[in-house]
Amino acid sequence: MHVVVNAAVSADGKLSSRRREQIAISGEADFDRVDRLRADSDAVVVGVGTVLADDPSLTVKDAERRERRREAGKPGNPARVVVDSRARTPPDAEVVNDAATTYVCVSEAAPVDRRLALSERPATELVTAGEERVDLLPAFAALQEAGLERLMVEGGGELIFSLFEAGLVDELRAFVGPKVIGGRDAPTLADGEGFVEEFPRLALEDVERIDEGVLLSWRVEPDTTTNDGSEP
Amino acid sequence: MHVVVNAAVSADGKLSSRRREQIAISGEADFDRVDRLRADSDAVVVGVGTVLADDPSLTVKDAERRERRREAGKPGNPARVVVDSRARTPPDAEVVNDAATTYVCVSEAAPVDRRLALSERPATELVTAGEERVDLLPAFAALQEAGLERLMVEGGGELIFSLFEAGLVDELRAFVGPKVIGGRDAPTLADGEGFVEEFPRLALEDVERIDEGVLLSWRVEPDTTTNDGSEP
Repeated sequence: MHVVVNAAVSADGKLSSRRREQIAISGEADFDRVDRLRADSDAVVVGVGTVLADDPSLTVKDAERRERRREAGKPGNPARVVVDSRARTPPDAEVVNDAATTYVCVSEAAPVDRRLALSERPATELVTAGEERVDLLPAFAALQEAGLERLMVEGGGELIFSLFEAGLVDELRAFVGPKVIGGRDAPTLADGEGFVEEFPRLALEDVERIDEGVLLSWRVEPDTTTNDGSEP
Repeated sequence: MHVVVNAAVSADGKLSSRRREQIAISGEADFDRVDRLRADSDAVVVGVGTVLADDPSLTVKDAERRERRREAGKPGNPARVVVDSRARTPPDAEVVNDAATTYVCVSEAAPVDRRLALSERPATELVTAGEERVDLLPAFAALQEAGLERLMVEGGGELIFSLFEAGLVDELRAFVGPKVIGGRDAPTLADGEGFVEEFPRLALEDVERIDEGVLLSWRVEPDTTTNDGSEP
């Protein structure tokens, strides 16, 4: 399995404002890059916070790319994965429409009625792992069992942190855009509890100017942690 | 007056962990760049949070650079400025040692005993502006009156946000380093309340790979705000 985290952040590392409204950070060229990355993936993964804030469909926008996928014997759109401990994804959310198969990863704590409502959606499958929160390792193992090898994660910051914490991220691609959003409560690329002693280490693979910003492509170092609490 | 904000952030936009301990984000080459920038500035500016967390001296480390400053008729070190609404800078902090002149910007709400203790330090001057919090425009006008034209701001995120809010930032230089820090409570490049409708706009001037990361140099657009709450 290969997991790529892809996100657009402001120059100060925010995914959106404290109101969690979508903010245009990148532009056409980056949207096209993201669409190509989606088309090259077996599944697009988001946290339920992103579903509730943006109601994304996570489909491939370019018709030719969908066509090429079909010619290669794949579904037109990659599968979608929502990490959703309490099954809060609304049954009428775009992410569970019939455009693609959707795996909703829930925990044992998800109310049964909400699980039922989601399981009744046309192409939705539930993956249950973890007691109170989704246990990402077994959940992702189940996705791999289902044939999903190349995963692209589009956010939000809580899920991205949890994936780094679980050691599941192979690559990070961050488009850094020409805005300052600010806000101590605004969502960032990696939220959660945060690391305090050992930090995942990255290696900068590529730097590319796109639109009015820059795309930073990082590889996650296999030995993902290093202990350094102070300046050298 | 020309104000450059300079900071090192993790790949996810954090200045440090939620414990606010210093974390090595950049390396020797970037340290040297920061030292050169200090030497080229009339003053180095920080918020009191940075003083309390790191106790920095903010002096020029390279002796030749200090010598060249003296040859040009300047003090060996640039002045230091602490934005410190309540005068919480400890009188024994490095930033008020005798290595350079230090301006402590306080508000009317700062206790008189603490103001007195700071004013008794060898080369410290108080600048009072604002009732409860330092009013940055008159404070910076007073610094300009004192002959400080080229200011370099080293953090933290609360001060940097306030400076963007006040429209005082001309340039942002962010070294993005090869680590993930994470944490919804970790300090970011721009904290504070955050912008919600209009966001300062930047123009990417330069991208340079340094150490194991990348230095992004942004110019703040003269019309600093734009209103766009949603994706195009």
